[in-house]
Amino acid sequence: MNSIGQIFRVTTFGESHGAAIGGVIDGMPANITIDLNRVQQELDRRRPGQSAIVTQRNEKDRVKILSGLFEGKTTGTPIGFIVENGDQHSNDYENIRSTFRPSHADYTYTSKYSLRDHRGGGRSSARETISRVVAGAFARQALEQLGVTIYAYTSQVGHIAIDRDYTKYDPAMIETNAVRCPDSEVAALMHNLISEVKADGDTIGGVITCIVKGTPTGLGDPAFDKLHARLGAAMLSINAVKGFEYGMGFDGVGRRGSEMIDHFTTDSNGNISTTTNYSGGIQGGISNGNDIYMRIAFKPVATLLKEVETINDKGEPTILHARGRHDPCVLPRAVPIVEAMAAIVLLDAYLLNKTVHI
Amino acid sequence: MNSIGQIFRVTTFGESHGAAIGGVIDGMPANITIDLNRVQQELDRRRPGQSAIVTQRNEKDRVKILSGLFEGKTTGTPIGFIVENGDQHSNDYENIRSTFRPSHADYTYTSKYSLRDHRGGGRSSARETISRVVAGAFARQALEQLGVTIYAYTSQVGHIAIDRDYTKYDPAMIETNAVRCPDSEVAALMHNLISEVKADGDTIGGVITCIVKGTPTGLGDPAFDKLHARLGAAMLSINAVKGFEYGMGFDGVGRRGSEMIDHFTTDSNGNISTTTNYSGGIQGGISNGNDIYMRIAFKPVATLLKEVETINDKGEPTILHARGRHDPCVLPRAVPIVEAMAAIVLLDAYLLNKTVHI
Amino acid sequence: MNSIGQIFRVTTFGESHGAAIGGVIDGMPANITIDLNRVQQELDRRRPGQSAIVTQRNEKDRVKILSGLFEGKTTGTPIGFIVENGDQHSNDYENIRSTFRPSHADYTYTSKYSLRDHRGGGRSSARETISRVVAGAFARQALEQLGVTIYAYTSQVGHIAIDRDYTKYDPAMIETNAVRCPDSEVAALMHNLISEVKADGDTIGGVITCIVKGTPTGLGDPAFDKLHARLGAAMLSINAVKGFEYGMGFDGVGRRGSEMIDHFTTDSNGNISTTTNYSGGIQGGISNGNDIYMRIAFKPVATLLKEVETINDKGEPTILHARGRHDPCVLPRAVPIVEAMAAIVLLDAYLLNKTVHI
Amino acid sequence: MNSIGQIFRVTTFGESHGAAIGGVIDGMPANITIDLNRVQQELDRRRPGQSAIVTQRNEKDRVKILSGLFEGKTTGTPIGFIVENGDQHSNDYENIRSTFRPSHADYTYTSKYSLRDHRGGGRSSARETISRVVAGAFARQALEQLGVTIYAYTSQVGHIAIDRDYTKYDPAMIETNAVRCPDSEVAALMHNLISEVKADGDTIGGVITCIVKGTPTGLGDPAFDKLHARLGAAMLSINAVKGFEYGMGFDGVGRRGSEMIDHFTTDSNGNISTTTNYSGGIQGGISNGNDIYMRIAFKPVATLLKEVETINDKGEPTILHARGRHDPCVLPRAVPIVEAMAAIVLLDAYLLNKTVHI
Repeated sequence: MNSIGQIFRVTTFGESHGAAIGGVIDGMPANITIDLNRVQQELDRRRPGQSAIVTQRNEKDRVKILSGLFEGKTTGTPIGFIVENGDQHSNDYENIRSTFRPSHADYTYTSKYSLRDHRGGGRSSARETISRVVAGAFARQALEQLGVTIYAYTSQVGHIAIDRDYTKYDPAMIETNAVRCPDSEVAALMHNLISEVKADGDTIGGVITCIVKGTPTGLGDPAFDKLHARLGAAMLSINAVKGFEYGMGFDGVGRRGSEMIDHFTTDSNGNISTTTNYSGGIQGGISNGNDIYMRIAFKPVATLLKEVETINDKGEPTILHARGRHDPCVLPRAVPIVEAMAAIVLLDAYLLNKTVHI
Repeated sequence: MNSIGQIFRVTTFGESHGAAIGGVIDGMPANITIDLNRVQQELDRRRPGQSAIVTQRNEKDRVKILSGLFEGKTTGTPIGFIVENGDQHSNDYENIRSTFRPSHADYTYTSKYSLRDHRGGGRSSARETISRVVAGAFARQALEQLGVTIYAYTSQVGHIAIDRDYTKYDPAMIETNAVRCPDSEVAALMHNLISEVKADGDTIGGVITCIVKGTPTGLGDPAFDKLHARLGAAMLSINAVKGFEYGMGFDGVGRRGSEMIDHFTTDSNGNISTTTNYSGGIQGGISNGNDIYMRIAFKPVATLLKEVETINDKGEPTILHARGRHDPCVLPRAVPIVEAMAAIVLLDAYLLNKTVHI
Repeated sequence: MNSIGQIFRVTTFGESHGAAIGGVIDGMPANITIDLNRVQQELDRRRPGQSAIVTQRNEKDRVKILSGLFEGKTTGTPIGFIVENGDQHSNDYENIRSTFRPSHADYTYTSKYSLRDHRGGGRSSARETISRVVAGAFARQALEQLGVTIYAYTSQVGHIAIDRDYTKYDPAMIETNAVRCPDSEVAALMHNLISEVKADGDTIGGVITCIVKGTPTGLGDPAFDKLHARLGAAMLSINAVKGFEYGMGFDGVGRRGSEMIDHFTTDSNGNISTTTNYSGGIQGGISNGNDIYMRIAFKPVATLLKEVETINDKGEPTILHARGRHDPCVLPRAVPIVEAMAAIVLLDAYLLNKTVHI
Repeated sequence: MNSIGQIFRVTTFGESHGAAIGGVIDGMPANITIDLNRVQQELDRRRPGQSAIVTQRNEKDRVKILSGLFEGKTTGTPIGFIVENGDQHSNDYENIRSTFRPSHADYTYTSKYSLRDHRGGGRSSARETISRVVAGAFARQALEQLGVTIYAYTSQVGHIAIDRDYTKYDPAMIETNAVRCPDSEVAALMHNLISEVKADGDTIGGVITCIVKGTPTGLGDPAFDKLHARLGAAMLSINAVKGFEYGMGFDGVGRRGSEMIDHFTTDSNGNISTTTNYSGGIQGGISNGNDIYMRIAFKPVATLLKEVETINDKGEPTILHARGRHDPCVLPRAVPIVEAMAAIVLLDAYLLNKTVHI
């Protein structure tokens, strides 16, 4: 299904080259003042053409809110929205109508549905994430009233990585460079790598780190809906994501339990906290109030700007001359998408947790 | 909620020291012949006391099927089942009634629910996974009729790891050692490490690799319900899991797109396949018929058999003397749980995919 | 939530006087040829201003499909659509901004959400049903390929009713009069009654009968999701509906079991059918292949075109001078809505039933 | 699916002659003190053999709670429960193994699933409602803390009916007779009718009226999940139910809007109420704080204790000699089931409504 969330439920629709991308935000709490400029700003962070290292498509991506807002506030009714598709070079894609691009969704969509809208990847296009960014921007404004803040950044491009300890970095630095990396020096190296890869007509992957601060205790459920399981599903549903970890993640498997325990402490006011946060803010699937930190792995995307051997839908060999304007590295534009998915999951978990007591 | 799946939906209940653990399997296809011995065998693979390197609790874990089977076949109606809790040393846990064990769910459960059944971890106990293994064993028998087979193994304990390429290993070797590692020599090293850790009253983490063979094309959905997002959520919902990756996962982020493309090829019968499988059997969120391979990171569990400083529910410092019989390393017993979660997700995706065409 | 259906899932958004009404149709089967003119025709049957006995608002209600169709066929991806709100006399409603209209949703919405969009009833406006008619028109085109046809008609207005036996009437007659009643003579009486009620500034209720022919056997689930429970919920969710019955309904409670049994018979080809259809096409919650027939009760709507005493949101008495252009009787325009809801439920049940066998 | 509810979600399993009937109550609020005797009392009101006018099967129907309770309180984790099936005369049903009983679910189940457990109706048996009564008894105890009370009674058997105005009757009278009708004189007539019908080996239908008092304002959703749509679906999912109405229901269709308006009034404390309650406590799908009243139509059940002509699963004619011990009229035993369904829906709606505001 094309929905996520149980209470705060986001449904998206739209193909890359259809009339519009859009969605419905259901379960948005009532009476929240919404700054629509900030919604648009999040879209602008995701927008193509924003820097030299991303795709040069000129998509304006202006959101229109169709319902659910009244005199600047949410009414509790569903928020319908659309973003019209402009600047469509559909002809750029005529050559892939009957061609299966390798490591794309062309073959699997055709297998599943018997037909597909091939233009710009159709439904498999990352333009679908526009709707997620809009929904996330609404969720974020509700979460801020609860003291929850979310930020993400590019922590690795190819083999160039900054330290895994997020506490070393100032989130205010993230937007100071096109890569969205809080370490300016490393950002410059990453930028160079992306430019180099782009010049080769190639692509490169990386890692985005995401942090949630101020989460109330109690969010998440004990069994299948552990908070990190929901976060993981949300992140893994972003195009090109191949891995997810939180807390110590894969690095923690080599350690002993005695090295990873987060000891409790009590301050003079009786407030309970832990002296460390190896757990990543979630214990037994439920938030404990500490920072939630996660790492999300993005593969290098498969659209190369060079000739690629492939087959057509009759199984015959053919040569793919990829046209279009593509991202050599999706990380910089994926940062607001990761934040949006975190916001969607967190607000849903917050609302669900309200139902634990009568 | 305590359910997973949209069509094949599994709901579980039960605390470690209550009368029984159990669940309901809804959406089980009708007319499938079920071998109940094989269901019990899966439980036996998960059972405590099966070897020297797991907890020595003596839990029989016999499953009773209460409904949904008639003369050896599924009827299409829900399958209710229970596994009675025996061998309960509830008094082992009296000392944690008002104590918060560090890096456990004691504090977060109490924050969320205001009270908790402290005995044996209550609902946060990994005994909940018994119900998953039962449900997975049903799913697996349906999947086998479709040619889908699933296996998992311990691929890393602490820093001792086998090669990431699963094709090097014979699944028939997995059950030949207590670690459930298909490389006997490495398994012996892992076994020694676990014994050593156990002697120290400590614990150790690791990685389980899971492979699904024979998946039909077309399983999974384009947006939020990408097949790997569902698999990831399922795996991340297992106790102690901190990370999930599929295909090239985190390792792929350092590579260029041109190194990771799975080129298509057509055999003499016109069947389409790919010459490599960097994608891990899923493209655009939808299975392409190749092997699905995944890696799941387990942290070292937090129950140490030594004194640990912690606090009680008043925030006062106290010393925890963990009693009970605990696993120094959960990996060997988690192998059948990982397989069960894969089976649950795959069967659900298969059934959902039947609704794409009228 | 603002969604209905488990596989074929329709989500709607929109207020009466917002920018647009719309929705998302998820789970629409792939590869179905869609005649968009027929979608628009269904909307035209629901449209205000279509006759002298309905509201004279001049709403064009043109549907725009934004996604999910490619070269005339459904692609299996979600169908986003909007219907822009035109001809808005928002000022007609300024007087009810702080007034609670009796027997409307003004008070309950304000209680629930703390605020409401008062213009034209906001989300509680029956304009929301536009989205249902669009979704139903898609469902219907899929169902027709399966041999399922649906029609409804006005069977009672006030105390003027036609015979309960639907087999006496020719569905081709329904659209021959503005009331949508298949008996022309009775339709004329109904028409007169509505005109009379309208002249009084009053309103009147009635009953719509709905018939589904050609339903395959096996649709519906045994327990909570009995086919008639789903149909009932769908019909009861239409504005102004106060009752639902199927088969013999309330009339059957006075009879003995021996008078109501549908005896089986077998034709020379071995096909099983029943000699009567007291059950209304559903037994044990599951369709048996016979006609499904239902009756849906609509109350007289509460918007009177005369002065009405009421209170404002401070609880103070005030006089309501209803403006706007309202329906004296909603039945004629509700006929396509009832058909749409039946189609939505039936297609969902059909798709779900495909998952019973592997 | 075999579940109902979005937050307070009840899943049931079990066949009439399997090992046990049972279910899982998920989303039960934490920290509610539960009186298990009252849960059993509700089951006893549903139990066979409780009077001369119901089936004489001797089913003890003792509920065992397996999880989710700790020291007398709910823990917020799922409540698993079973009721073992005793007194099974499975051989009574051997003759229907390959026979389709008319107006039963035998044919539709076989069509849907290809096989069925024929003993005692299998999953289509009304024994499934045991699980609903258990779940309802839990919901009711939570609702009582919120001031919500629910009662139902038999208001019609055959053509013998009491007044539709529920305010004329004292709920304390309901349990004073076996029919569960609050008017003792009419109850005696109903009793006689049932005895007469039973003597004829026949069955008779009727109507149950259900009242909910003390509902907070704000429960229910605007579009598909109107409170009465959810109540209607719940009631229609009970075996043998053919119709549902609330407020003025079908009787209201003959009236004019001006006769049915519930005028607002304000008391000296500023509390808003209405002077009448034609609406039945729900406006625009949302509760307004008034009494909710509903009527539910039950058909005469199809199991006659006389010879009935029917066919077998090969389509050949045969004579059915119904054995077993059956209800001539299900109304008396259905009263607690109706109450349970109301409680399940109300608690779910209450919990969902908590998520409207952050």
